[in-house]
Amino acid sequence: MKNSKKQIILLGSTGSVGRNVLDVVRKYPEQFHIKAIASFNNVELLVEQAEEFSPEMVTIGNVALYSEIKSRLKGKVKIYAGMKALEEMATEPCDTVFMAIGGVVALKPLVAAIGAGRRIALASKEPIVSAGEIIRNLADKKRSVILPVDSEHSAIMECLLGKTKESLETIYITGSGGALWKVCDKSMGSVTVNDVLRHPKWKMGRKITVDSATLMNKGLEVIEARWLFDVKSEKIKIVIHPEAIIHSLVEFVDGTMRAVLFYPDMRFPILKALSFPEVLPNDFQKVDLFSIGNFSFFAPDVKKFPAVNLAYYVLDKGGTTPAVLNAANETSVNLFLTGKIKFLDIIDTVAKVVHKHKSIKKPSLDDIINAEEWAKGEVLKLW
Amino acid sequence: MKNSKKQIILLGSTGSVGRNVLDVVRKYPEQFHIKAIASFNNVELLVEQAEEFSPEMVTIGNVALYSEIKSRLKGKVKIYAGMKALEEMATEPCDTVFMAIGGVVALKPLVAAIGAGRRIALASKEPIVSAGEIIRNLADKKRSVILPVDSEHSAIMECLLGKTKESLETIYITGSGGALWKVCDKSMGSVTVNDVLRHPKWKMGRKITVDSATLMNKGLEVIEARWLFDVKSEKIKIVIHPEAIIHSLVEFVDGTMRAVLFYPDMRFPILKALSFPEVLPNDFQKVDLFSIGNFSFFAPDVKKFPAVNLAYYVLDKGGTTPAVLNAANETSVNLFLTGKIKFLDIIDTVAKVVHKHKSIKKPSLDDIINAEEWAKGEVLKLW
Repeated sequence: MKNSKKQIILLGSTGSVGRNVLDVVRKYPEQFHIKAIASFNNVELLVEQAEEFSPEMVTIGNVALYSEIKSRLKGKVKIYAGMKALEEMATEPCDTVFMAIGGVVALKPLVAAIGAGRRIALASKEPIVSAGEIIRNLADKKRSVILPVDSEHSAIMECLLGKTKESLETIYITGSGGALWKVCDKSMGSVTVNDVLRHPKWKMGRKITVDSATLMNKGLEVIEARWLFDVKSEKIKIVIHPEAIIHSLVEFVDGTMRAVLFYPDMRFPILKALSFPEVLPNDFQKVDLFSIGNFSFFAPDVKKFPAVNLAYYVLDKGGTTPAVLNAANETSVNLFLTGKIKFLDIIDTVAKVVHKHKSIKKPSLDDIINAEEWAKGEVLKLW
Repeated sequence: MKNSKKQIILLGSTGSVGRNVLDVVRKYPEQFHIKAIASFNNVELLVEQAEEFSPEMVTIGNVALYSEIKSRLKGKVKIYAGMKALEEMATEPCDTVFMAIGGVVALKPLVAAIGAGRRIALASKEPIVSAGEIIRNLADKKRSVILPVDSEHSAIMECLLGKTKESLETIYITGSGGALWKVCDKSMGSVTVNDVLRHPKWKMGRKITVDSATLMNKGLEVIEARWLFDVKSEKIKIVIHPEAIIHSLVEFVDGTMRAVLFYPDMRFPILKALSFPEVLPNDFQKVDLFSIGNFSFFAPDVKKFPAVNLAYYVLDKGGTTPAVLNAANETSVNLFLTGKIKFLDIIDTVAKVVHKHKSIKKPSLDDIINAEEWAKGEVLKLW
């Protein structure tokens, strides 16, 4: 019986997306088996997950925690530690490597999994922002299928199914607008971390919730879409849709559009990525068109949210510049979350570092990792 | 060059849909060739169309007009007359038989075209309402592909592309609500023909515009969807969407939905039916999400618009009952358009005739035609 189940390797099992993945797997015990889980340093939850899901392998990113987890799980499972072990875990035979690690550290394990020709469920947008061209080319060469888990990209993939590349006119990435959509321009300078973390529609990790508030999240998604679907940036637009029911739309050259709708719950795109092309019934909350009543659409306010145009700028600039945007943003968001900078400083800092950077054309993976390190250092130098 | 063009036989070329078909063909002279056209009695326009599009065949339904059209088009083209000639024209070799004849008279030519295994672009909903099961079975047997042209069914087809039948949960047929959507209940008894013909979103023929106002059009579309997509009636719902941009939605068993959007212009679904699976660029007005701003959704008011539940009733009753609904409705709409009955009498009359009818199970095509004749007679007896 076990052999007929889809074997899943889950990197980032203790984060927001990772916990949702396990919640989905819990609902389909006949369909999926968790072969391996990994976390950077959440020993407590990792042990709990290992006991519930009985994986064959458990990896802890932080080597200092190896002996603790070893003693807690002794004899029950193979235990590994360190970032290199995480990369190796990502290449193990399985049906799906689920990448749910946030931030720039996701890059190496993702490249390793693609290099091994694995089928990837990709929730981490940062690596594809930093190294989109390398990842796209490697995935094509290794015939590694990347199924997006970001709700917007999951919807775009669904919109594009069965369509030729030539028939695509415009991708409209929707966004709820984030926590500050309705905050007036004058008050933007004084918003607090708590204001920013109060997202109107999605329960997510802290970093992505800040990115939603700056609209950098949409900017990163534009870059992500460019490489996931191999579409030029001028064909990718952002539309604010506060109800967060339509997760993206695609317009075709004949002027017709397809849209994909679901209740804002990450388990929908997670289930899709795990089960694709199968369509599995579930008990998640559904869209009730009659009770929603209204869908609205707005153009993003690019003056209030300069992250949008900055993302298009780095995408057109290419080379190592998107990696600099990504790492500078991650570092600046951390500074904001720890109270060291104000909200408006986030994108201001990112812009300064981006404009200071001398982009390397046709970068190697090491060039990209070096550029990220440089960007992180530049942000810290500024504060 | 001419041989590489798609050959189209257009039945009902002088009606609202037929003229739109020719407008589409006019824009793609390298793609499509009109092989044959037919009209019931609009000699003037038929001659004009024959001169512009140079078809090989022209058929006039009304035999009394044969000599007039013959003298007007002498030597230029083969001319036929009568309903039997129309049926024969529908079986001629071609790439697409475009059925744009309104009303019950479309049934025989449609059955003839399907019997000949032709690819059909179906704009006429009445025949599939009356004889859905016969048409479905015959099309399956003859491997005749039916591409819907009704905007809602064109959208549903698009939503279902690449999906298994088992994955379908619910079809949501959208409707603008018609001309009387905002008229209060008390005023419904006194609306005039002019009120009813003022459709807010679509420019269409008179009969379908009245059907939009009674919501019988949505009822007929539910029946049409049942047979076009072989879906049980409980899986088909109606949702009022006054902006008329989303042309239908399909929910799948995993709780995700696909929707199809386009500006309300019949040329979109016409072009799709002619070119499918190709996607052709065009200069028709496109949806501008930013200028639309809002989409709204309402449940249909089934007390104000009893046609909705009447349609579900006849669908569940089956046999010859849907044909009776269809013919009684067509006759009643004509009585309304000629000022002989009031607006609320339309559905009231249809309901009386439907409830009087003794349905024949597993009807033949003749049973259906006889039931339609009977229904027409019953309506006229009542007024």
